[in-house]
Amino acid sequence: MTSHEFYMDLALQNARAMKGQTDPNPLVGSVIVNDNRIVGVGTHLKAGEPHAEIHALRMAGDKAKNGTIYVTLEPCSHHGRTGPCAEAIVEAGIKRVVIATLDPNPIVAGNGVNILKNAGIEVITGIREREAIQMNEVFNKFIVEKKPFITLKAAATLDGKVATHTLSSKWITTEDSRLDVHQLRSEHMAILVGINTVIEDNPSLTARIPIGRNPIRVIMDTALKIPLDAQVVADHNAETWIFTSKHYDIQKKQLLEEKGIKVFETNSTTSVNPMEVVELLGENLISSLIIEGGGNIHASFFENKLVDKVVLYFAPKLIGGKAAPTFLEGNGIANMEDAVELINTDIVKIGNDFKFTGYPVYE
Amino acid sequence: MTSHEFYMDLALQNARAMKGQTDPNPLVGSVIVNDNRIVGVGTHLKAGEPHAEIHALRMAGDKAKNGTIYVTLEPCSHHGRTGPCAEAIVEAGIKRVVIATLDPNPIVAGNGVNILKNAGIEVITGIREREAIQMNEVFNKFIVEKKPFITLKAAATLDGKVATHTLSSKWITTEDSRLDVHQLRSEHMAILVGINTVIEDNPSLTARIPIGRNPIRVIMDTALKIPLDAQVVADHNAETWIFTSKHYDIQKKQLLEEKGIKVFETNSTTSVNPMEVVELLGENLISSLIIEGGGNIHASFFENKLVDKVVLYFAPKLIGGKAAPTFLEGNGIANMEDAVELINTDIVKIGNDFKFTGYPVYE
Repeated sequence: MTSHEFYMDLALQNARAMKGQTDPNPLVGSVIVNDNRIVGVGTHLKAGEPHAEIHALRMAGDKAKNGTIYVTLEPCSHHGRTGPCAEAIVEAGIKRVVIATLDPNPIVAGNGVNILKNAGIEVITGIREREAIQMNEVFNKFIVEKKPFITLKAAATLDGKVATHTLSSKWITTEDSRLDVHQLRSEHMAILVGINTVIEDNPSLTARIPIGRNPIRVIMDTALKIPLDAQVVADHNAETWIFTSKHYDIQKKQLLEEKGIKVFETNSTTSVNPMEVVELLGENLISSLIIEGGGNIHASFFENKLVDKVVLYFAPKLIGGKAAPTFLEGNGIANMEDAVELINTDIVKIGNDFKFTGYPVYE
Repeated sequence: MTSHEFYMDLALQNARAMKGQTDPNPLVGSVIVNDNRIVGVGTHLKAGEPHAEIHALRMAGDKAKNGTIYVTLEPCSHHGRTGPCAEAIVEAGIKRVVIATLDPNPIVAGNGVNILKNAGIEVITGIREREAIQMNEVFNKFIVEKKPFITLKAAATLDGKVATHTLSSKWITTEDSRLDVHQLRSEHMAILVGINTVIEDNPSLTARIPIGRNPIRVIMDTALKIPLDAQVVADHNAETWIFTSKHYDIQKKQLLEEKGIKVFETNSTTSVNPMEVVELLGENLISSLIIEGGGNIHASFFENKLVDKVVLYFAPKLIGGKAAPTFLEGNGIANMEDAVELINTDIVKIGNDFKFTGYPVYE
């Protein structure tokens, strides 16, 4: 680890600590170093307030002159509420700028760097780039595509099963992993399951942790079969949005709406198209979605290349069974060489379970 | 880590370094410490040669007096070629004995400790016990049960699939993992697959690494359907043993035997019983067996509680498919709460893949 990584890690730590309080802005952190001493630290606290670089420059004061600024995201070039940060850096007399990642928006990416370079400042990019991109993965996608960043979550035995051949499924993982799932839910704006999961398991889909924020519950329900006494309809612990096809029961829709449920009619005449659900969620400003469906819902999103991230909790157990369902069903891919690879993989132990994280790369 | 663990780790390292050269004896290492200095190091090199403690005592000479001896396995109490080690320790004037694990044979376990205690020596047991037991897991089982220690090995995608719904399966894991599999094979006395694997994949089942020792190839083949030009029959790169039922083709058996293949007739009238195969392998002094079958062979061993260890190579890939086979099929267990738990689990990265190891605990 060079000193570049050392200072950038501090900037990343300050950025990450603001998780959940900068929306709809990204997390950004900054550190200013002069003569091998840290002279300023900044982080973006809240939308509408100064960017991270401005806080760091203010803390550094005169000591910013001839210093190096580390910033986790390319300094902005636009005139927002706090002016373009790139210009503020130039004015402060900074000699060198070290950037983790460029602006996620390809239309403006590089503009901030150009302002700096044109002012004769040395610019280094790509230090801890992967960490900086992952930190704002939801923001990065939504700002560009206006569609939610989609995480597929499943809990399975080591042989990939989510239930036995008799559909017994309680519990696969331990309390520790289930707590982690509730944390994960609370970090998402919406959670999606299919109607079969609602009918079979009657889940509440809430984040049952002390300071958990409940995501909006999204149900794909082609024929509005959802029972009126289902927890997601009756408990009012969080909003529930149901996506249905063209052929739904008008009376059922009214009954649901009377209970405060939002019903979205999609263009599908058969089963609801996941592409359309994602589009509509984006239009409704849902920037992050976690899918906790069964193997068929997962397959429908996966086969449409809609899954951005996969989080799997593996219990150290074996159950076996040709008929036991796995967390990814549907038709599946035909040739092993066409399997979807996951990159930036990570695996950590949670209690006795293993939590795997990875990012699919579609051809 | 206390100093006990420090010295025992050195003893374990010396023991492990002899892997493959002590058969049929276990791996054992020893360290003698006096006045906070290591005065002797010993390891068992070869069956018929001195035990680890004897080598360590010889190196220590007079400095063993009033010292502490660390030994990964309880010192023996029987009069073998090098006399009972427990008595040699008493005679050397050792003051304290630290033992990782007792003798695996419950009939003699504790006898060595008793000799030491009766001589007034302090005895501490259980330091790095798990590591010491795992190091000799094959020996520990075979010496007591006279049956092979059985490892189930599979390579799968993250969703547990070993092939796509069209049965395409090449390749799931990377070259790195496949090399590791060849190493694993070379550490086993025998490798087992079912006849379907032979017919579908025509594998050679050899250990293709520079100093690899090929295991004996064991095929379960109820009706002697094995093709005479199958690699395991024709290549003569290793011995091949076929286990068949009572109803086999006598002529086919003769043809196979002419090619040097050993054919075992079992008592089964339908499909070959894995229990009987394991029993026969034990009678033929096979102490370690690796199973690389398909999901049904795996299930037949798993459901009969015959699998001692599970080694899984997971590629960071998803394939999906309700019809895609997993590495554990059969009927499977009916209730999730009866799932077989794996203990002493470990997961390491091999290239881009993940290698999982665990030990099933049957109810």
